[in-house]
Amino acid sequence: MRFYERLRAIQRANNSLLCVGLDPDPEKLPMHLRYCDDPIGEFCRGIIEATSDLVCAYKMNLAFFEALGGRGWLTAHRVLSHMPPNIITIGDAKRGDIGNTAAMYASALLRDFKFTASTVNAYMGEDSVRPFINDPDRGAFVLALTSNSGSRDFQFLKVGGKPLYERVITKARKWNENQNLGFVVGATHPSQLKRIRHLVRDMPLLIPGVGVQGGDLKQAVRYGCDAQGEMALINASRSIIYASGHEDFKEAAHTSAMALRDEINLYREKFF
Amino acid sequence: MRFYERLRAIQRANNSLLCVGLDPDPEKLPMHLRYCDDPIGEFCRGIIEATSDLVCAYKMNLAFFEALGGRGWLTAHRVLSHMPPNIITIGDAKRGDIGNTAAMYASALLRDFKFTASTVNAYMGEDSVRPFINDPDRGAFVLALTSNSGSRDFQFLKVGGKPLYERVITKARKWNENQNLGFVVGATHPSQLKRIRHLVRDMPLLIPGVGVQGGDLKQAVRYGCDAQGEMALINASRSIIYASGHEDFKEAAHTSAMALRDEINLYREKFF
Repeated sequence: MRFYERLRAIQRANNSLLCVGLDPDPEKLPMHLRYCDDPIGEFCRGIIEATSDLVCAYKMNLAFFEALGGRGWLTAHRVLSHMPPNIITIGDAKRGDIGNTAAMYASALLRDFKFTASTVNAYMGEDSVRPFINDPDRGAFVLALTSNSGSRDFQFLKVGGKPLYERVITKARKWNENQNLGFVVGATHPSQLKRIRHLVRDMPLLIPGVGVQGGDLKQAVRYGCDAQGEMALINASRSIIYASGHEDFKEAAHTSAMALRDEINLYREKFF
Repeated sequence: MRFYERLRAIQRANNSLLCVGLDPDPEKLPMHLRYCDDPIGEFCRGIIEATSDLVCAYKMNLAFFEALGGRGWLTAHRVLSHMPPNIITIGDAKRGDIGNTAAMYASALLRDFKFTASTVNAYMGEDSVRPFINDPDRGAFVLALTSNSGSRDFQFLKVGGKPLYERVITKARKWNENQNLGFVVGATHPSQLKRIRHLVRDMPLLIPGVGVQGGDLKQAVRYGCDAQGEMALINASRSIIYASGHEDFKEAAHTSAMALRDEINLYREKFF
């Protein structure tokens, strides 16, 4: 199924725009998991089991798996094997390199791991993004305006009167023949989000930053969605996966995810 | 030893500015290696043995290892174990993410793999780069002006009259308290390289693009080096590692690396 259709289908099926970010930090795991064979794998499996009826997507932050060394790769594969088949899986890797190298990264993420989509850094331009959007069934989210403090260093620089992130968006939109491109826009920039949604029409926006990072959820929903109240993926990582640091982490993640999904849906009803 | 000192020391000891890029493509390996236990590992070991007296650095392109799946990580570790201790090893991964995630990537590259340096994409700003330059003994090369065709999409955009890549350089220079930062500048942009060397004074420049990509070697040496004819790392990958696709690949890599090193040194004598 084409990427955009697949995203809409799961957002409707689970009535959810919530994307849960899997950023598993070994130092934050519940104590009772730390001494099993594969603590990170077990932890992620628990989070997936507890939340998969409440989300449209999971975003796996590959940095946290790479930091585990060689076994991190195996753990990442194992985590992916627990994903229900209709949920979007995003390999959050923010890769970007010259064409022949980007093709290798795309192969690792889309063919080896079989992620449905990945995040991509477009600083190196078109040939660095192309391999991630060759397959119409797989998507890519290009970094536009990120949620972190460092986003102010370059992304807001004015280029011909417009901020750089807008130039990234208007240029990258031209690469979207396969209708499988989206953008990353942090919830920490609500007024810019409004303008960006206007620019991209109904393309998907991956919106991190509503949890620990302090972004504005109401505005993220109001301005992040397309005209049908869809095509935004509102990501929360730490506020859900570490909702409890104890044996009840699955129940706590479920409760936290349901509360966030429901709050998102409340705003959808209000604005759409 | 501090990163800049270490770089100068090996450039002097081996009388070389050559950096060999290890981008091992399984489809391009010599046939006789393809059926051993770890073809990529064996291939890279051969290249290192054949060239380590001729280089200042090896740049390992992590995409080619990630594309191998889980065993790619093990292979990368094995390749690193063959590196002579005084040679600079660059983890060419072009990572860039929010602070807590960048810290995980830096941990994977600098603590787990123990690379001397890494390449970093600064689109996400200061907090995405900081974890890579916290240790004064390890370096980071920030992408400024890359060698690929896509470099024209964003890097040349004018910001207040200056191209974006210059803004990246002038901003990132302010983060260089530990004297361990450098930049990536493609040899395919010789006139810009001249201006960039002027801007960065004696900071190191990692210069890809002289081989298959067609960059101008003479100008790369002339304008890439600091006033002492050092601190440029001239990278060649495919033209050396695939100099022969047969059993004599080591001899061919040695011959090709020596020819390139000597040509570089000819230009150094001419201009410095």
